[in-house]
Amino acid sequence: MKVKLTISYDGTNYCGWQSQPNGNGVQKEIEKAIEKLTGEKVAVTGSGRTDAGVHAQGQVASFSIEKATIPAEKYFKALNTLLPEDIRVIKSQKVNEDFCAIKSAKQKTYEYTFYKSQVELPLKEKYQTKLSENLNVERIKECAKLFVGEHDFKCFCASGSSAKTTVRTIYEIKIKNSKTQLKILVSGNGFLYKMVRSLVGTLIACGEEKIGEKEIAEMLKTGKKHGIRTMPAKGLCLIKVKY
Amino acid sequence: MKVKLTISYDGTNYCGWQSQPNGNGVQKEIEKAIEKLTGEKVAVTGSGRTDAGVHAQGQVASFSIEKATIPAEKYFKALNTLLPEDIRVIKSQKVNEDFCAIKSAKQKTYEYTFYKSQVELPLKEKYQTKLSENLNVERIKECAKLFVGEHDFKCFCASGSSAKTTVRTIYEIKIKNSKTQLKILVSGNGFLYKMVRSLVGTLIACGEEKIGEKEIAEMLKTGKKHGIRTMPAKGLCLIKVKY
Repeated sequence: MKVKLTISYDGTNYCGWQSQPNGNGVQKEIEKAIEKLTGEKVAVTGSGRTDAGVHAQGQVASFSIEKATIPAEKYFKALNTLLPEDIRVIKSQKVNEDFCAIKSAKQKTYEYTFYKSQVELPLKEKYQTKLSENLNVERIKECAKLFVGEHDFKCFCASGSSAKTTVRTIYEIKIKNSKTQLKILVSGNGFLYKMVRSLVGTLIACGEEKIGEKEIAEMLKTGKKHGIRTMPAKGLCLIKVKY
Repeated sequence: MKVKLTISYDGTNYCGWQSQPNGNGVQKEIEKAIEKLTGEKVAVTGSGRTDAGVHAQGQVASFSIEKATIPAEKYFKALNTLLPEDIRVIKSQKVNEDFCAIKSAKQKTYEYTFYKSQVELPLKEKYQTKLSENLNVERIKECAKLFVGEHDFKCFCASGSSAKTTVRTIYEIKIKNSKTQLKILVSGNGFLYKMVRSLVGTLIACGEEKIGEKEIAEMLKTGKKHGIRTMPAKGLCLIKVKY
């Protein structure tokens, strides 16, 4: 039986979705819980890795299990009694045998959240990044349009990536601006290592009027970097994976 | 010189505003930071205690300092470099010598936040309480009206309180209900030990149709308790103190 899980986690204490030599990943915690529950050692496949400290509202994972003694839709409750409190399975369902959380994924949406304040706010600091400058939000919106479509994002990929190609398609970038918050939502067919945080950092530089459409066009076309800041992990959340 | 501080904190790791034999309070951390900064041992007075685990967006405190070498409005930045990251001073200002954070306080507003979900959501769990039942929100609104005004709240005071009188005045209770959240805002001239969390627990019991206006009227009039649940500290936040 193939089971699809929808998972939410607070990534603060994990080295990301995947385990690393220096720490535990969310994937490993889920595999351990499934083994405790069923006695079966399974490999859980995520829709993609999230980096260390990045959060998820709707990560998706799948696994195959030989014994079908527990109905797929009952897995989430049972796993939640075995998982650490910063990881919860929101939903579990039976899927076709050819379903694969990574290969079948069509669209992923990430959200980056800033709070606006001159002073660090302890009640925001866990899941948001402070923004103390007044930004040109119209310019951010204009510059964001340049990223939409199929491009070579090699400028926006941190070293250490194992990706075969740096070409990705971005479907949409939404900017939600209010008095207290700035949210940047990015949807695409997939993302490179630290790519969303680099895109967001670039858009913030645009809002600060340090770079503009010319520099972004150049980065996408020629791969020439223009001082990109990678935003901190804690403000980033994987919202949804579409299949 | 008398200085007024506006403070925000994540109360998760504190035993409340005031230190207790079993743990550190937020007040002590601020006193330690002031001593490090000025070399002077001062007593910091808060607008009131917040209980263990309760958060603050706008707690107010005051203290007297002999040396006036640092201008009052510069204290916040200097203190923030010395405070633990879950406590931040938002604002500091000079006030009249007769100002006292506790005695001069006219109105306090607390907010309690629930998220609606069948499953625990790790990204909400730190500052909100899960609500999985469908509540009768109209009934909550009707019942909330009964608390407004001057009443003897002895039914809503946990044992261990040192208050001289259990009479308090509630100015307003606001209920903000959406698809994903329920927020209860309570404003009053002061609150007893665990009083807001008991009021909120009572209103939830009203929403579950376990008790109603009759039982609340009786509790306020005769002091006869009707199975009050005290809601968890983590969902509660001191929003504002008015002077």
